Amino acid sequence: MTIERHGQGRQARRRASTRQALIDAARHLLAEGAGAEASIQEITKTADVGFGSFYNHFTSKGELFAAATNQAMEEYGAHIDALTGALTDPAEVMVTSIRLTARLARTHPQIARILLAQGMSHLDVSTGLLPRALRDVNRGVAAGRFSVADPQLAVMVLAGGMLGLLHLQMSGRMRAGPQRTDAFATMMLLALGMSDAEARDVISSTH
Amino acid sequence: MTIERHGQGRQARRRASTRQALIDAARHLLAEGAGAEASIQEITKTADVGFGSFYNHFTSKGELFAAATNQAMEEYGAHIDALTGALTDPAEVMVTSIRLTARLARTHPQIARILLAQGMSHLDVSTGLLPRALRDVNRGVAAGRFSVADPQLAVMVLAGGMLGLLHLQMSGRMRAGPQRTDAFATMMLLALGMSDAEARDVISSTH
Repeated sequence: MTIERHGQGRQARRRASTRQALIDAARHLLAEGAGAEASIQEITKTADVGFGSFYNHFTSKGELFAAATNQAMEEYGAHIDALTGALTDPAEVMVTSIRLTARLARTHPQIARILLAQGMSHLDVSTGLLPRALRDVNRGVAAGRFSVADPQLAVMVLAGGMLGLLHLQMSGRMRAGPQRTDAFATMMLLALGMSDAEARDVISSTH
Repeated sequence: MTIERHGQGRQARRRASTRQALIDAARHLLAEGAGAEASIQEITKTADVGFGSFYNHFTSKGELFAAATNQAMEEYGAHIDALTGALTDPAEVMVTSIRLTARLARTHPQIARILLAQGMSHLDVSTGLLPRALRDVNRGVAAGRFSVADPQLAVMVLAGGMLGLLHLQMSGRMRAGPQRTDAFATMMLLALGMSDAEARDVISSTH
C-alpha cells in the first residue's frame, strides 16, 4: 500500500510537472509573439517533453494557450492583490495597481509581453486583470469615491489605456517614468468621476 | 507628340491602377488579419496582377502593408475631418470624432478591421487617427477647454479606449449604442480635465 501510494504520488508529480513544462513553453512562445503559429512539435520541443505527451494534457493548442494565458494573468492579478491588500481606499488601490502595471515590463517582462501579444483580445479574458479592475471600480462606486455610469466601460477604458502605456513603453517610444505614470493615473481617476483635487490627494497620499 | 503623351498617360494610369490593386489587396488581407503571413504570390493573386509587377511598385511586403495601412488611416482621418470641419469648439470636435469612430465598424468595416488587426501597434502609426487626435487635444488646451498635463499621453488614452470599444463591439461582446458611446465620450472629456457639468453640456449640444 505504502509503495503503491508513493508510486501514485510520484506519477502525479511527474504528470503535473509535464503539464507545467508545456504551459511554461506556451508562455514563452506567447511572449515571443509566436503563439498561434507554433506547431505542437515546436511546443513539446521547447518544453523538452515527448511529442505524444501533449495530448495527455491538452486536447488542442488553443486549450494549452488559454491555460498559459490564464496562468500568467492570474500570477499578475495575485501580484497586484498582494501589494494592494492592505489599502482600504479603492482610489488608492486603483492608483497603486496602475503604478504596479506601469512597472510590469520591468518586474514581470514575460507577463507584460503576453499581455501585449494578446493586445485587445485581452479584453475577452475573464481572468487576471479585468475582473479585478471591475471589482475595484465597483468598490470605489460603493464607497462614493468613483462616479461611473457604466463600470464595464470604465474597466475597458482602464485596460485600453494601460495596454497603450505598456505598448509604448516596451516599444521604446514613450518612457513611463513616475511622472508620466502619475499623469496617467490622474486621467484615470478623473475619468472615474473624481475631482481634480481629490485625484491629486490620492496621487500624493500613495507616494 | 499627342500620341506619345496619350501613350504616357495611359501607361501612368495603368501603373497607378496596378499599384492601387496591390494596395487594395493588402488592405483586404490586413482586414482579414492575414497581413504578416500573406505571401507575395497570395498578394498578387488577390490583386489580380502579375507576380513580377509587385517589385515594380514595392521593395518589400512591409512597404506595401505600410502604404495600405497609411491609406486606410488617411481615409478614416479625412472622413472625420469632413464631418467635424464646421465645428469650432474642440470639445465638440472630440465628442463628434468619438461618435464617428464608435460607428466605424458599421460605416467603414474594412478600416475598423485594419485598425483592430493592428491593435496597439496602431499607436506607432504617424498617419490617420493619432496626429489628428493630438491636434484636437492641443486645440482644446489652447482654447481653455481641456486641461491636460501630457497631450501625447492623453492621445494614447483616447486611442487605447477607442480601440477597446471597437474591439468589444466587433467581437460582439459589448454593444456600443448611443448611450454607451456617450458614457465613453463623457469619460474621455473628464480625463481631458473638463468638469462633469461641462462634459454634459458638450454631450447634449452635439446631439
